[in-house]
Amino acid sequence: MKPSRRPTAHDVAALAGVSQSAVSRAFTPGASISRRARLLVQQAAETLGYRPNLIARSLITRRSGTIGIAIGYMDNQFYPAMLDAMCAGFAAAGYRVLLFTPGPGGDPDPILDEVLRYQVEAVVLASARLTSHFAEQCSQARVPVVLFNRRTERATVSSITGRNREGAAEIARFLIDGGHLRFAYVAGLEDSSTSRDRERGFVDTLRQAGLTPATRVVGHYDFALAREAARTLFSAPSPPDAIFCANDHTAFAVMQTAQAEFGLRVGTDISVVGFDDVPLAAWPAFDLTTYAQPIRPMAERVVAATLAHLADPLCPPIQEQVDGSLIVRGSARLPPRRHS
Amino acid sequence: MKPSRRPTAHDVAALAGVSQSAVSRAFTPGASISRRARLLVQQAAETLGYRPNLIARSLITRRSGTIGIAIGYMDNQFYPAMLDAMCAGFAAAGYRVLLFTPGPGGDPDPILDEVLRYQVEAVVLASARLTSHFAEQCSQARVPVVLFNRRTERATVSSITGRNREGAAEIARFLIDGGHLRFAYVAGLEDSSTSRDRERGFVDTLRQAGLTPATRVVGHYDFALAREAARTLFSAPSPPDAIFCANDHTAFAVMQTAQAEFGLRVGTDISVVGFDDVPLAAWPAFDLTTYAQPIRPMAERVVAATLAHLADPLCPPIQEQVDGSLIVRGSARLPPRRHS
Repeated sequence: MKPSRRPTAHDVAALAGVSQSAVSRAFTPGASISRRARLLVQQAAETLGYRPNLIARSLITRRSGTIGIAIGYMDNQFYPAMLDAMCAGFAAAGYRVLLFTPGPGGDPDPILDEVLRYQVEAVVLASARLTSHFAEQCSQARVPVVLFNRRTERATVSSITGRNREGAAEIARFLIDGGHLRFAYVAGLEDSSTSRDRERGFVDTLRQAGLTPATRVVGHYDFALAREAARTLFSAPSPPDAIFCANDHTAFAVMQTAQAEFGLRVGTDISVVGFDDVPLAAWPAFDLTTYAQPIRPMAERVVAATLAHLADPLCPPIQEQVDGSLIVRGSARLPPRRHS
Repeated sequence: MKPSRRPTAHDVAALAGVSQSAVSRAFTPGASISRRARLLVQQAAETLGYRPNLIARSLITRRSGTIGIAIGYMDNQFYPAMLDAMCAGFAAAGYRVLLFTPGPGGDPDPILDEVLRYQVEAVVLASARLTSHFAEQCSQARVPVVLFNRRTERATVSSITGRNREGAAEIARFLIDGGHLRFAYVAGLEDSSTSRDRERGFVDTLRQAGLTPATRVVGHYDFALAREAARTLFSAPSPPDAIFCANDHTAFAVMQTAQAEFGLRVGTDISVVGFDDVPLAAWPAFDLTTYAQPIRPMAERVVAATLAHLADPLCPPIQEQVDGSLIVRGSARLPPRRHS
C-alpha cells in the first residue's frame, strides 16, 4: 500500500536499496549513475509515485505545474481581462498557464493529444465557442476540466458562469420600466450557452409582461457580423427602440452602427444594453448600460474549482454561478421612477 | 557522428535492435516492455539525440516545447492581439506558449528561477515596461530572449520593433502639412523605448521645420492617466490643435476627454493621432489616424527570431524593425494636397 503522505527521495532510496544521492542522479540528465542503480530507482519511484522535480516527475505522475487555458478569441476585451486575472490567480497557487488558442482552422478546441503531451494538470475552457466533446475527452483521460463562462447540459462537467438568465431578466425589466415598446435581441453564437441563457431570460420576461416578442438577429459575437445584424434591425419598417445585445462587444458594434450609419442617438432615440461590463463599457464614447460579470471574483472561482479537482480526483463537479449586477449608464433610457 | 536530420523512432529501433513499437512503449509511462528492451532503447535514443516526446525528451535535452511570453498589461488591445498572433505562430512551429503576467507586486519581469524550472526554451518579453535586467539574467542562463516592441541600448539582445522614429516623423510631417500650429506629445512610460523613440522622431521633425516645440505631457500608457494629461492640455491658455499620442490606447483616452469634457470635435477643432493601429482604431467611434504596427508580420518576425536562436545557440543578436504605414482616417485634419 502506498503511504498517504507524498513519497520523498528518502523513501525511494530505501525501497531501491541505494543512496539518496543515487536517486537524485537517476533523475538528473547526464548525471553519472550505473544502469542497474538507475533501473532500481526508476522502479521504486514508479511503485511509490515519487515526484522528483517538475519535469522528471511529470513522466511518472503527469504533473507539470501548468494549467492549460483555451481561449477562443481575444477581440472581445472580456477574454484578455479574464486571462490576466486567471493567470494571476493560478500564479498565486504556484501554477503557470499554458495558452491554447485556435489553430489556423479556427477550431478553438485544443487537441487532446497536445494536452496530454504537455501534461497540463487541468484545462480551463474559456471560450463561448467550445463544444463539450473536448471536455468529455479530457474527462476520460482524467484531466480535470473547468468550463468558464459556459456550461453544458451534462451535470458532470464543472463550470463557472455569470448569472446569465437572471441578468438578462433584469435587463428586460429595466427596459420595460423604461417605457420601451419594440424589443430586439442580438444573439451571439448559436451554440453558446451564454447567448442561449441570456436570450431565454430576456424573452421569458417580455412574455410574462405580455409584450410583443423581441425581434431576433444574430451577431455571432463578431464585430463585423454584429454590425450587419444592426443594419438589418435599423432598416426594418418598424425598427426596435430597445436592443439587448448578447455581450458588450456586440453592443459596441450595434451602437456605433446606429450612430454612424443611421444617425440615431443612443440613449435617446434608441436604447442599447450589453452584458459583461468590460473596461471599454465605461468609456465616454460608449457609456454602456450593461450587466456586470465581475472579472476578479469569476477568476477566483475558476482557480478555486480547478484546485479543488487537483486536490481530490474524486471531487464532484462544481457548477457555480457568480453574482453580477446591472450597471446603469447612459446608453439606455431610464425608467421614470429612477429619476425620482 | 550524428546524422544531420532529426532522428526518428525508426532510427532508434534499428540501432537498438528492437521493433518501432518497442521504442514507443519504452517512452510511454506504464506501457508493457521488458527491462532489457527499455534499456536498449534508452541508450540508442541518447546516442542519436532522439526526442521521443516533449516531456521525456526534456529530461535529456532540457527541451520542453514551450516558449515563455511575458506580457505587462492587457488593457491596450495591441498586446492581446499580438499574443494571439504569436501563439498561432509558435503553435505552427510546434511550440506552446507559457504565459507570464505581472505578479501582485506589479513587477512585469518573470522570475528567472521560474523560467528555469518550467524549462521554457526561450522568452519573449512583450511589454514596454520591462527592464533589461531580466534579459541579461536569461542571457547568462543561456535562455534566448527576444524583446518585442522594445529595444535596449545594448546591441547584445535581440529585438523586434516597429519603425518608431520614422513613423513619428511621418506623423509630424502629416500634421505640419495639415496646417496645424500648436503641437503636443502625450508620452507613454518614461522608461519605455517606444515612447522615447516616437517622441524623438516627432520632436526632431518639428524642429527641422522650424516650428515651436511640442507641449509635452505624460500619459504613462494608462487610460486614466492619459485622460488626466489631456485635461492639462485642454485647460491650458493656448491649447494644442494637433496632438500626437504615444499609442492608440492613449489616443482613445485623449480624444474622448476632448469630446466629453471640452466639447471639442476631433478631426475638426483638434487633430489626434495615435500609434499601433489596433482593431479599435478603425471603429466608427474613433476613426483614428495612426501609424500601423502590423500585428501579423511583427508576430512572424518574433517567432522567426526566436526559432533562429533555438536552432543555433551562437546565432548573433537579431535586431529588426518591421515596416509600418500611416493610416489616414478622420481624427486629424488632412493636408490640403490630399484633397486634390
